[in-house]
Amino acid sequence: MQLISEALERTIEELAKLPGMGRKSAQRIAMHLLKKDEGEVFKLAEALVHLKKSTTTCAVCQIISDRDPCPVCANPKRNTGQVCVVEDVKDVYAVERTNEFKGRYHVLGGVISPMENVGPDQIRLKELVRRVGNGEVQELILALNPDAEGEATSFYIQKLVRPFEIKITRIAQGIPLGSELEFIDEATLSRAFESRSVLF
Amino acid sequence: MQLISEALERTIEELAKLPGMGRKSAQRIAMHLLKKDEGEVFKLAEALVHLKKSTTTCAVCQIISDRDPCPVCANPKRNTGQVCVVEDVKDVYAVERTNEFKGRYHVLGGVISPMENVGPDQIRLKELVRRVGNGEVQELILALNPDAEGEATSFYIQKLVRPFEIKITRIAQGIPLGSELEFIDEATLSRAFESRSVLF
Repeated sequence: MQLISEALERTIEELAKLPGMGRKSAQRIAMHLLKKDEGEVFKLAEALVHLKKSTTTCAVCQIISDRDPCPVCANPKRNTGQVCVVEDVKDVYAVERTNEFKGRYHVLGGVISPMENVGPDQIRLKELVRRVGNGEVQELILALNPDAEGEATSFYIQKLVRPFEIKITRIAQGIPLGSELEFIDEATLSRAFESRSVLF
Repeated sequence: MQLISEALERTIEELAKLPGMGRKSAQRIAMHLLKKDEGEVFKLAEALVHLKKSTTTCAVCQIISDRDPCPVCANPKRNTGQVCVVEDVKDVYAVERTNEFKGRYHVLGGVISPMENVGPDQIRLKELVRRVGNGEVQELILALNPDAEGEATSFYIQKLVRPFEIKITRIAQGIPLGSELEFIDEATLSRAFESRSVLF
């Protein structure tokens, strides 16, 4: 194949490095950008440059944000007594979209996974214990993914934090809204039965 | 939802405008970029800026490339007597990948489509006739998509170019390699029978 445009080739290569993007989609996007105004393409490029330049990690909760402390930790209206423990920053975004939780976060930056050589020291557990030890936290809400590593990490955190005698909760596990029972896996359905709530 | 980072939000918004990209994938890519070195993100941003700045359209064939005439038209090793007619620049890339075709291209920039108000004057047919009229073209290879619009446009081109008494061919239509007959649609299979070739 004759190299037709180095600029185009380089853009396709860089785009293809992104997650979930193959060469075909990268090419489609590059072709799309070629047809757009220069201004629009620049806006994207500029956003990317700013992304790294103007974001920082919150020293308290490790949310990636434009400021340190982050807007959640700095917001006086948010409940400092409730701390939601999540694996990753993207989980913070998911919880924030619900508009349900009004406390603060603690991003672990991973979960304990012996298979992938991630032990308790590789994730931010010491920092969590320090936060709880400061005395301000009244409830720790565990919101890790409901898989083996998430469950193990939740269990480990429970053991770590129990001495402080604060409330420890876990977000509910059961059948998702809008689903149909016949398509729910057995483990989820079993859990939904175990955790059934009294209505009357 | 509390706005956590304007820089992140803006990147997600810009990424989500790309074709085939939803908010979820845009968010995943933005999160991925946040974890990468600044240098790598800059490389992508730079490629995007250069994409528009250093590409141009070839006056002969309308390929988008770094130079005018494009490397295909400028290459003395390529056969000037053969011209492959395609709908879009991305089709040129597809044909070039085969390393089969050694002639030149003519990008129409669309196909005739009364449904979408695209008539013969909206695509580069006049330019095609002019190229053929110059006398250098010996064979016109029609490589439009095998759908109603592509077929109609191929037929229209045939009528236009017939007076010049050059060879007009169309790329073969039939069952694709690696496919299984039972999953081939009737129209394709019928065409494959009609166009069968003599082996012995």
